[in-house]
Amino acid sequence: MSKEEIDYILKVAEKLEPYARGVQGDLLSGKLFAMLFYEPSTRTRLSFETATKRLGGDVIGFSSPESSSFSKGESLADTIRVVSGYADAIILRHPKEGAALFASQYSTVPLINAGDGAGHHPTQTLLDLYTLHKESTLEGVKIALVGDLKYGRTVHSLVYALSLYNAKIFLVSPPELSMPSHVVSDILERGATVHETTSIEDVIEEVDAIYMTRIQKERFPDPSEYQRVVGSYRLTQELLKMAKPTTIVMHPLPRVDEIDPAVDNMPNAKYFQQSFYGVPVRMAVLCILMGVFD
Amino acid sequence: MSKEEIDYILKVAEKLEPYARGVQGDLLSGKLFAMLFYEPSTRTRLSFETATKRLGGDVIGFSSPESSSFSKGESLADTIRVVSGYADAIILRHPKEGAALFASQYSTVPLINAGDGAGHHPTQTLLDLYTLHKESTLEGVKIALVGDLKYGRTVHSLVYALSLYNAKIFLVSPPELSMPSHVVSDILERGATVHETTSIEDVIEEVDAIYMTRIQKERFPDPSEYQRVVGSYRLTQELLKMAKPTTIVMHPLPRVDEIDPAVDNMPNAKYFQQSFYGVPVRMAVLCILMGVFD
Amino acid sequence: MSKEEIDYILKVAEKLEPYARGVQGDLLSGKLFAMLFYEPSTRTRLSFETATKRLGGDVIGFSSPESSSFSKGESLADTIRVVSGYADAIILRHPKEGAALFASQYSTVPLINAGDGAGHHPTQTLLDLYTLHKESTLEGVKIALVGDLKYGRTVHSLVYALSLYNAKIFLVSPPELSMPSHVVSDILERGATVHETTSIEDVIEEVDAIYMTRIQKERFPDPSEYQRVVGSYRLTQELLKMAKPTTIVMHPLPRVDEIDPAVDNMPNAKYFQQSFYGVPVRMAVLCILMGVFD
Repeated sequence: MSKEEIDYILKVAEKLEPYARGVQGDLLSGKLFAMLFYEPSTRTRLSFETATKRLGGDVIGFSSPESSSFSKGESLADTIRVVSGYADAIILRHPKEGAALFASQYSTVPLINAGDGAGHHPTQTLLDLYTLHKESTLEGVKIALVGDLKYGRTVHSLVYALSLYNAKIFLVSPPELSMPSHVVSDILERGATVHETTSIEDVIEEVDAIYMTRIQKERFPDPSEYQRVVGSYRLTQELLKMAKPTTIVMHPLPRVDEIDPAVDNMPNAKYFQQSFYGVPVRMAVLCILMGVFD
Repeated sequence: MSKEEIDYILKVAEKLEPYARGVQGDLLSGKLFAMLFYEPSTRTRLSFETATKRLGGDVIGFSSPESSSFSKGESLADTIRVVSGYADAIILRHPKEGAALFASQYSTVPLINAGDGAGHHPTQTLLDLYTLHKESTLEGVKIALVGDLKYGRTVHSLVYALSLYNAKIFLVSPPELSMPSHVVSDILERGATVHETTSIEDVIEEVDAIYMTRIQKERFPDPSEYQRVVGSYRLTQELLKMAKPTTIVMHPLPRVDEIDPAVDNMPNAKYFQQSFYGVPVRMAVLCILMGVFD
Repeated sequence: MSKEEIDYILKVAEKLEPYARGVQGDLLSGKLFAMLFYEPSTRTRLSFETATKRLGGDVIGFSSPESSSFSKGESLADTIRVVSGYADAIILRHPKEGAALFASQYSTVPLINAGDGAGHHPTQTLLDLYTLHKESTLEGVKIALVGDLKYGRTVHSLVYALSLYNAKIFLVSPPELSMPSHVVSDILERGATVHETTSIEDVIEEVDAIYMTRIQKERFPDPSEYQRVVGSYRLTQELLKMAKPTTIVMHPLPRVDEIDPAVDNMPNAKYFQQSFYGVPVRMAVLCILMGVFD
């Protein structure tokens, strides 16, 4: 996506935010969306459903492969062709990377990627950008990405998008989980400034936003090594007091241990706000795809 | 809840009953409810959904923990905060006692307890009271509660509520399953009259209502003891002919063996009617919480 | 069902087809349908939901027994009586033959059979007839039914219905999977013409429609026998070139191997169209049951 496209989505999201807050809308009235979730993802599903229903649309679908007979025997291509005959658009969540692109070749209606394995999760990136736009600054933002930068698809998509906005990106991770070098060189080429470090303390005073991510136990062969690492990438009240009062804390959720619950009540904590912003952003994506503003 | 509050809910339920019977309503138009069911309870879920949709509202959520990714790793507190950002109210069913109270501390929208383990199930009690009000009498009702009075949360909540209405309560159970003494002394203090017995025959001629409950096999170490007991607490046509023609039979459902199917066609049988009354009662609760009548 | 009843449903379906294609309807506005799926059937469920929601109605229910607590302990009769109190009609899918008839005796609202085991699946037959009516010809159609004609309930219901329309029916199957002789004599009596053969090539030049079905591995004790048989009942581009250009190919879906994906792009392939026709046909059934046109 180009910067112009992203900016347009964010602008539409801002216009639709009152509907996300409960004003009754009808922009999607008469529209039916098929939510095909081949892996459960309740947060993403519920925010898409909220976006649809608060604008007067409705959904059909399934929330996990177990509750669907589609998983047995039928090819994804055939399922997509069948469901294309029912709905005005398909919202697909699939565990396999590339599933969304594959499926879009068989769909006769617009198809939205709601996450495909280690692949992309574009609406998550959009809501991250929207959160920066609303709660901090997007153009030229100084942002620290903290934790697992190697495996997390969320942060990869995010840094590509941030590089369109002249962001100054601080990559904070244990060496085992650092950002892949091809991603770093890609975003440098696109104009981002990048600093890599292993310590939050090094950068916390300088940044406008701290983007925390979860460090998964499975990534470490040695449990004691995991324990040591995880402790150093945990955000506490004490640590956060080193930051500027306006510095915001983000997290794609769910969190486990990487943000101390005591942080929740500090004005910097914006991760639940960020989660809410998934609604106006998904409203914007759905409305634009449905040609509501043409 | 005070008697005034209960009376108000029952009055509103009566006003809304035509909508429960199929008249198209719009009192909840534009309202979105999150149904978070951490344990399946199809009857409760479907009657809440019916209440919502017949009044023009809509729902998001999940019907069992298996179909949700929320059960994996994320704390209930975080889930509630996230979902508070999506919906106008949360309807929570949870297997742990106290879960609803805990969750309400994190919710930024009204939260309705749709049953929390051995804890409370307030809308069930309300629909029981409504059934008495509509099909028999509530003030001063003479009612027999029959079966498992020790473990059943339904009957505990019910007797507390009945004690507000000068009820004459007959507790009919095997000694192993009698009403806990602290509950009995509580309701005596609140003005109820209480009689305890082990035999339905003792009281059946006198009562206005018979409230049957299920006796669970698991409660008995000895299966033959269970067989003996269960047979004595089974309502049959023959037994029911001893009652007044106006005596009603209630049951929270599902029933197993404790009411003979032959009873279903007798005019006294009101348990399916009672189940239906869950709809107007839940309509009333939802509308009052949403401030529809302010 | 009589021919007159079927013709009426098809006529109504044709009138409603624009709504199935996305025109916003309100014929079912204010109607609530309970979808009780005791076995998962995503295609049938989603097309019923689409039919309902595109006409302004709504649904409650469950999509598999695992997501319902109804499967535990409660009798089907009691569940049906309870749900009758919530919804304007019940759409039942059940694995046991005869379940729909049994359930209809306890329902106080109209009950639709959405498939009961080896029993009936009437809306599938109706959409098959509608597909012939729209894409080929129904009266006097020359149709080949190919594959498993012994166990497939779809084809049994279909041939009974076709016999009302003076169809010329070609039964093409391996001897192990031929149409039961009582079905053949029944439809002969009703006026159909029937030819039995084991080879598609024998009949492909003559027919207006080819109705493919899946051959299930479980039917064969010997896997190598299955492999041999399945290869001879697979429709390919090469084979289809022997047919008339106007000959249509149908399949109830899901397919596995019995139609080569290369056939999908030939103008003869109508199985995805056929799947779509499930929506207007189910719209017609729901509207007629709800007395919308009275």
